[in-house]
Amino acid sequence: MIPLTQLDDVLRLDLPQPDTDAIEAARARQAQLTKPPGSLGRLEELAEFMAGWQGRDRPRIDRAQALVFAGNHGICAQGVNPFPQDVTGLMVANFTAGGAAINQLCRVAGADLSVIALDLDRPTADFTTSVAMTDAECLDAFNRGAAAVDRDADIVILGEMGIGNSTVSAALSHAIFGGAPGDWVGRGTGSDAEGMARKAEVVAKGVALHAERAPLQILAALGGREQAAICGAVLAARAARIPVMLDGYICTAATAPLHGANPALLDHCLIGHLSIEPGHAALCEAMGKRPILSLGMGLGEGTGAALALGVLRGALACHDGMATFAEAGIGPG
Amino acid sequence: MIPLTQLDDVLRLDLPQPDTDAIEAARARQAQLTKPPGSLGRLEELAEFMAGWQGRDRPRIDRAQALVFAGNHGICAQGVNPFPQDVTGLMVANFTAGGAAINQLCRVAGADLSVIALDLDRPTADFTTSVAMTDAECLDAFNRGAAAVDRDADIVILGEMGIGNSTVSAALSHAIFGGAPGDWVGRGTGSDAEGMARKAEVVAKGVALHAERAPLQILAALGGREQAAICGAVLAARAARIPVMLDGYICTAATAPLHGANPALLDHCLIGHLSIEPGHAALCEAMGKRPILSLGMGLGEGTGAALALGVLRGALACHDGMATFAEAGIGPG
Repeated sequence: MIPLTQLDDVLRLDLPQPDTDAIEAARARQAQLTKPPGSLGRLEELAEFMAGWQGRDRPRIDRAQALVFAGNHGICAQGVNPFPQDVTGLMVANFTAGGAAINQLCRVAGADLSVIALDLDRPTADFTTSVAMTDAECLDAFNRGAAAVDRDADIVILGEMGIGNSTVSAALSHAIFGGAPGDWVGRGTGSDAEGMARKAEVVAKGVALHAERAPLQILAALGGREQAAICGAVLAARAARIPVMLDGYICTAATAPLHGANPALLDHCLIGHLSIEPGHAALCEAMGKRPILSLGMGLGEGTGAALALGVLRGALACHDGMATFAEAGIGPG
Repeated sequence: MIPLTQLDDVLRLDLPQPDTDAIEAARARQAQLTKPPGSLGRLEELAEFMAGWQGRDRPRIDRAQALVFAGNHGICAQGVNPFPQDVTGLMVANFTAGGAAINQLCRVAGADLSVIALDLDRPTADFTTSVAMTDAECLDAFNRGAAAVDRDADIVILGEMGIGNSTVSAALSHAIFGGAPGDWVGRGTGSDAEGMARKAEVVAKGVALHAERAPLQILAALGGREQAAICGAVLAARAARIPVMLDGYICTAATAPLHGANPALLDHCLIGHLSIEPGHAALCEAMGKRPILSLGMGLGEGTGAALALGVLRGALACHDGMATFAEAGIGPG
């Protein structure tokens, strides 16, 4: 069904479920490993999660794919960002040259990084006066995101870059989850208090204009191309039953319309890192997700997801490599 | 001065300080890297911390040494643990055979693991009736811990194993930092509510017997061999200006007597993971340390420190490998 021919096809996707037999087998193995039950905490949960989605009781990560999507945003015309829009393209060049944080963190974590710049010379429209994207533009970005997923990956980690996209994220979060506009607005890349107030006004105006729309139409009306591409990648991974590691606030907010359409669309997604953007904690809570790391970061690019991949590798290494009580000749076995 | 000839020599150690020029140079570099200032959060702090202790503006980890110390405890005679004491030796055999969690996590994090079993056939004495170790026994364990440190390591990560040592940790924490005995007692390895009440009683009794002693004498009176060895390793690393990553509750509590003697003794120490043992958060706060990870783990062995090594590697990779604004031709440069 992917590539989609209309946005509402998302609602009709066949959603593969985790393999409950593999989860049970992984849980049974965890209980036999040489450690007190539960003492590896989140690592045990992660091993079982990966077992379910990969459909094997000893999940593994031979191939980790990192995808970073970049886009430009018409909302920048409202003066919501202290940096010029051409920084998006310059940072894409930096990714390509290997000079950004995400390059270093992918190398350390053993992930293959691809950067997909989405029509940077054609920013979306200003969502305070019209929809940011037509349905066709949104679908195109969605399908390009979906097409980028390597069906042989064992995990896909997602990130983004786009000057102005913390304002886009606040608008998506506010439109899907309510609250006050200011609840979802943070400093982003270098905004001061005045800039944050301006962002909240812009978010309020955009959401007032588009809030009556259904969640997937909200993605088109308030989102950007990288947000649509992230949604596409999330669902293409789901179709192949590949688990996904989302990054921080921008990346999580990109999937808010999917959550609004059907929370189960995100069942295969982890969140790598709790952003310092104040809206992220509320977003994670609203989506019922617990980020793996909390290191005071707020860079985006997929950096939090790449760091969390190291924890995930540790979880699977313990699950696969530890001796059982019986093998070690210790008590409970 | 190490090996020490008496415990109180700790108070007379020459303490190398971090290289403030290297810290300043690292901070200046961080400000030029292609990211908003501060957006790598804790990673930036870690890079500067490592720069200071390694004395170079581009700190690195070519050699990570992991040391796990194991000991047995006379306090087990008081029935504070549901597992028999021979599990300590069986787990040491498991470490040696490569079957424990710490083996897998060291492999993932790129750390060389050494396991040092300290006279497992000679448990310390029961601290409710006498000192756990004579000064000579404590010194011997301290010096063996110090001798285990590789002076060429770029970081030393520390862990432990010892049935009964969560009770020992509660006693050390209570003796050094006060509060109520129950504040420092948790489930450890499998204690129920009744077991925890028993542990709190035993802690109260031991601390009442020995609390008038100076901090380093408290180490001998209430600690075990692995605790003394951890203190020795911490100070041998300090003498060589090698940063140290402590693990969780047991490992942190082992250093509480050093903090009691002089908090500056621990300036070169990070804490890898916030344990689920309830006393750990209070201990970290009392020592002014913020653990890097919080993943609901409570296994010990150095597992939290080994996982945090992955984050530290990420921090240094960003610091060393990222392009500056000038190199990337982006604005602020």
